Amino acid sequence: MACTVLKFGGTSVADLDRIATVADIVSARAAAGEHLAVVVSAMAGETNRLVELARQAAGEDAVRETFDDEHDVVVSSGEQVTSGLLALALRRRGMPSRSWLGWQLCMNTDDDHGRARILGFADSGLPEAVEAGEIAVVAGFQGVTARGRVATLGRGGSDTSAVAVAAALGAQRCDIYTDVDGVYTTDPRIVPKARRLERISYEEMLEMASLGARVLQTRSVELAMNHGVTVRVLSSFSAPGDENPGTLVCSEDEILEKQVVSGVAYSRDEAKITLFGVEDRPGVSARIFSLLAAAGVNVDMIVQANARGEGQANMVFTCTHRESATARRMLEEARGEIDFERLEVNTDVAKVSIIGVGMKSHTGVAETMFRALYDKGINIDVISTSEIKISVLIEASYTELAVRALHTAFGLDAA
Amino acid sequence: MACTVLKFGGTSVADLDRIATVADIVSARAAAGEHLAVVVSAMAGETNRLVELARQAAGEDAVRETFDDEHDVVVSSGEQVTSGLLALALRRRGMPSRSWLGWQLCMNTDDDHGRARILGFADSGLPEAVEAGEIAVVAGFQGVTARGRVATLGRGGSDTSAVAVAAALGAQRCDIYTDVDGVYTTDPRIVPKARRLERISYEEMLEMASLGARVLQTRSVELAMNHGVTVRVLSSFSAPGDENPGTLVCSEDEILEKQVVSGVAYSRDEAKITLFGVEDRPGVSARIFSLLAAAGVNVDMIVQANARGEGQANMVFTCTHRESATARRMLEEARGEIDFERLEVNTDVAKVSIIGVGMKSHTGVAETMFRALYDKGINIDVISTSEIKISVLIEASYTELAVRALHTAFGLDAA
Repeated sequence: MACTVLKFGGTSVADLDRIATVADIVSARAAAGEHLAVVVSAMAGETNRLVELARQAAGEDAVRETFDDEHDVVVSSGEQVTSGLLALALRRRGMPSRSWLGWQLCMNTDDDHGRARILGFADSGLPEAVEAGEIAVVAGFQGVTARGRVATLGRGGSDTSAVAVAAALGAQRCDIYTDVDGVYTTDPRIVPKARRLERISYEEMLEMASLGARVLQTRSVELAMNHGVTVRVLSSFSAPGDENPGTLVCSEDEILEKQVVSGVAYSRDEAKITLFGVEDRPGVSARIFSLLAAAGVNVDMIVQANARGEGQANMVFTCTHRESATARRMLEEARGEIDFERLEVNTDVAKVSIIGVGMKSHTGVAETMFRALYDKGINIDVISTSEIKISVLIEASYTELAVRALHTAFGLDAA
Repeated sequence: MACTVLKFGGTSVADLDRIATVADIVSARAAAGEHLAVVVSAMAGETNRLVELARQAAGEDAVRETFDDEHDVVVSSGEQVTSGLLALALRRRGMPSRSWLGWQLCMNTDDDHGRARILGFADSGLPEAVEAGEIAVVAGFQGVTARGRVATLGRGGSDTSAVAVAAALGAQRCDIYTDVDGVYTTDPRIVPKARRLERISYEEMLEMASLGARVLQTRSVELAMNHGVTVRVLSSFSAPGDENPGTLVCSEDEILEKQVVSGVAYSRDEAKITLFGVEDRPGVSARIFSLLAAAGVNVDMIVQANARGEGQANMVFTCTHRESATARRMLEEARGEIDFERLEVNTDVAKVSIIGVGMKSHTGVAETMFRALYDKGINIDVISTSEIKISVLIEASYTELAVRALHTAFGLDAA
């Protein structure tokens, strides 16, 4: 259908003034003839408040990974409120509009509450309403299970809702309005000369997102890639008349001028775990990582090196800070089964990565990267690579220096 | 079904501590073998907050009588949150429990949003769940229209929800937990010797409720009467082990010892409107009150007296403060059509009433009432009576004095 899906996040609907601004943006686009579905998040801070209420009512001491169905009943009310308020604000502007909650939208999910996956859409009347010119205001983040229970998609789930609705409607594009005006070559707080990218491929965006450049939720980018939904990231805070086109997240084919390196990303939530003197026999590595996987530890970089050539090796891997505690406990407990001399956890590390689809067809990228770091006296601890990314683990205090050096070395600085 | 419906109002679920207390009360009853459905209101203050958000988003200047369907989407989220939180708190206590929102409950209403009427219940699985021993936590105040939209029942609607659920389940009783421990012979703030009634008939309760003794919403009492649901009003604030049985609201037949007068009620939200010199010809009264009815003015007491025997009469009627402004405007505008000399609005009046089913079979009740007031020097302005009620309009400053005098005169003071 010739329609567009817009999505406004929590900071864009933080209060009634912001909701009024959103209503102005949406009204102007609808008045210009666009058929629109608008996906909204909870007002900023509301989800945290509701999660905390649910946590305390349930008597949970710690942050949980999985949730109760009732947790979702409580938490999903935040998006419900925003959707009703925006529909009211649009009607005030003379725009035909109505809200759509997860159960009205018939957005079916599995029953993995708190991080449910979207299974599909049943007949709901949504496409017909949008076709007829009514602005559909969709409560993001929520769906309904086969058992008729409310399910939420997990943090940042409204991005995923928006892309899913766009795919279901066959929308021309999904515009994600947020508090930044696009995807940048790197974090502008570190590199003031960072540039907004006009286009970025799904694959690059996925690497950026998973590395902590939190503009779009990773799942939403995957979904967009799988369904070929073109996503645009743009600011809801621009002054009227001063809107810029944001960044288009699209397939590689739609990007004519491919940069060798599109961006520099970093993550400080890295822990480096070293197992010294691991017995060097077949099957030991497999055993270690199957134990960690079973405990829910997402291992990222892995390096193994023979330590002394005496049937012993040192094993290095990285994971997040929080998971490193679990990893340490698991490995200590498994010591009878897995023989090693000593375990060391270092959280004073950061991962810096260069990302670019052009890397596939260019040589010398790694060399340029390593030389740029060497020139600044930055020591590389661990290296990992993919087709479109090279990551290095360095001492945390060098993070900004490394990001700036790489941004310059790959010609990303704004003129 | 052998089950009981419990209802907890906003002050009873005002915060997580209060919700924990409610969970304790419910758990204890379930553990004793009762099958329960629990209807909850929004946390105290939450509905006001949501109403205000909706009002501002819609750009409404004044309080409205009718509402938008989106208003209901916003406002109904309050009960949703409480129902999820209580279900979590019950599970924490090892009790099988789940929340039921209006659309899950299939509580069908008309589409008079903001004050919708319940039409009935469709198949939802609720009776089966309660039968099986699961505690059903029902979000009060909300239903769903034939068009699949959320509808709210209006202020105090959770009482009505509770009675409707009790009727639908064929429950033995509906226990309304609130912040008072029952229905009193009069307002204990005015008469410290006021006594808690053990039983009160539906008819008496209706008169009490409509006169401002706001323990139960009038609609819920009507519904209970029509469906023969026995209602019990009791406190959720009693210390454990110190619970009292509250007040039973039931049919007259179930009350063996009928009091001549069960209670003394009062209302200060009264305005007395006098039309002086109304043309005294057939059809004028009918025209006046049809105009007022069309404007939504609920006229209460009415008195007409010939003024000077010259084809002119004075007409007196009462309504609420707010409605008196509408009434004045309507009547002034209709002056061409309805001839009168002068219109006077007096809001410095109060209505004091004695209520009792025993009145039907006793004489001399009015005399006792008027004498008691006369003895205190209280002038009676207007009188109206029904089978089980006598009301008088007096000067507002005499309200407390009149209530105390009548409470004593009819032997209601506690020993």
